[in-house]
Amino acid sequence: MPPPSVLRATLEYDGGHYRGWQAQVNARTVQGELMRACREVLGTDVKINGAGRTDAGVHAFAQVASLHGASVKAAELGKVRQDLNDLLPPDINVLRLAVAPASFHARHSARERIYRYRISRRRTAFGKRFVYWVKDRLDASAMQATADLFVGRHDFGSFAENAEGHDSTLVEVAFARVETPPDAPDLIFFRIAASHFLWKMVRRLTGALLEVGRGRLDAAGVRALLESRSGKPAEWTAPPSGLFLESVAYPGDPPPPVIDPYRPGF
Amino acid sequence: MPPPSVLRATLEYDGGHYRGWQAQVNARTVQGELMRACREVLGTDVKINGAGRTDAGVHAFAQVASLHGASVKAAELGKVRQDLNDLLPPDINVLRLAVAPASFHARHSARERIYRYRISRRRTAFGKRFVYWVKDRLDASAMQATADLFVGRHDFGSFAENAEGHDSTLVEVAFARVETPPDAPDLIFFRIAASHFLWKMVRRLTGALLEVGRGRLDAAGVRALLESRSGKPAEWTAPPSGLFLESVAYPGDPPPPVIDPYRPGF
Repeated sequence: MPPPSVLRATLEYDGGHYRGWQAQVNARTVQGELMRACREVLGTDVKINGAGRTDAGVHAFAQVASLHGASVKAAELGKVRQDLNDLLPPDINVLRLAVAPASFHARHSARERIYRYRISRRRTAFGKRFVYWVKDRLDASAMQATADLFVGRHDFGSFAENAEGHDSTLVEVAFARVETPPDAPDLIFFRIAASHFLWKMVRRLTGALLEVGRGRLDAAGVRALLESRSGKPAEWTAPPSGLFLESVAYPGDPPPPVIDPYRPGF
Repeated sequence: MPPPSVLRATLEYDGGHYRGWQAQVNARTVQGELMRACREVLGTDVKINGAGRTDAGVHAFAQVASLHGASVKAAELGKVRQDLNDLLPPDINVLRLAVAPASFHARHSARERIYRYRISRRRTAFGKRFVYWVKDRLDASAMQATADLFVGRHDFGSFAENAEGHDSTLVEVAFARVETPPDAPDLIFFRIAASHFLWKMVRRLTGALLEVGRGRLDAAGVRALLESRSGKPAEWTAPPSGLFLESVAYPGDPPPPVIDPYRPGF
């Protein structure tokens, strides 16, 4: 028997029918489905770590998971990936499977995570499960000016669920952008990159940006929320349907592939 | 009271949760949902005709329906459309609402219908409900060469469910194209235009094209099916998830808007 290898799996999923990433007793989760498929395909229980513990209903373009405890030769990876996908439900898809260094841990090794929140200003019969549909007029440039405040090292405690439960609520944000694809003017994306995120942080930052977009809040109000703890952002929490874990970066990785900015995997 | 006007509604829908367009007792249908919303918004029962009686699970980018029996002034159309959408389920969307000539009938007045069948060669977590996912290698140019045979006036009886129940199984096909968007090479579309279609015809033509794409059938075999009646195509019926009513044309209409070729409404 060769020593167990660490595998790095990249997954996309529609989180709409799951109680989030994290395995739970008596609840359907993405990690739980992956564990079940791995057990069957690899013939052994593997320990699975995910880079982002996405909440119930949150999606992923490219979640990364490390699988610990199974022995897989490089030549078998393609077949194993295929077998996993044959067993997984259709809304979970293993995009890539690779052998990783023995020290690789999807959560601890991650250098940066990017999340994308998709806002749509148009009713559509097809995409509701992948957007937050907002009827109000939104001032996207006011939203961008406010998002600029998030960049750098700040205390995001006002934007965290259970802020007291976090070791620290300081987060260093690498970028925070409000984007509208030129050929899809009804969409607004909020994309944010950081080494880590607090619980519900992206959905609450999005909620605050939407308040700004509607003209009910201004940049000074948002700055105040970064400067002293407030429970206000909890009321603005944007729904999970619009949120995607876009990508996760590890030291030594090549730049992430460009993800089609408005097409969630069609 | 002004005389009742005829309204022309253009609708998009995800047919995945409906037993088709046509109203039925004890089954959820698109027409049934529209009737219910119209009754509430217009305060009266309207008679609704649809241009294409899409089957269970079939979608529409732009179905056209005529609403007969309500009085709506042109100035109120925007409000009525908004009110209908507020009442309709999220997977049905009234895109446009206009006053039509008194003689307008969505089904009888239609000059041409275009259907699109979406085939995907890639597993994806997000779009399965809007494609037919085919793992086999497909020869798209053999498929196009075969689709060329459909153009013109032919007896499509071999491709119709309940061919005997149709007055005639002769159909004049204006175009039949196999297309792959340059920026979405995993997708294949089969688009077909005709004045009318027989029951399940597009799904059976698609099934035959897929057999050709796989190398199990050739153009001569398909030609034979057009020349003498066969039950064979019924076995190849492609699933409804990939089928969209793309547009409906009426005399005097401007050319239809270009529909993003691979993005179903995001």
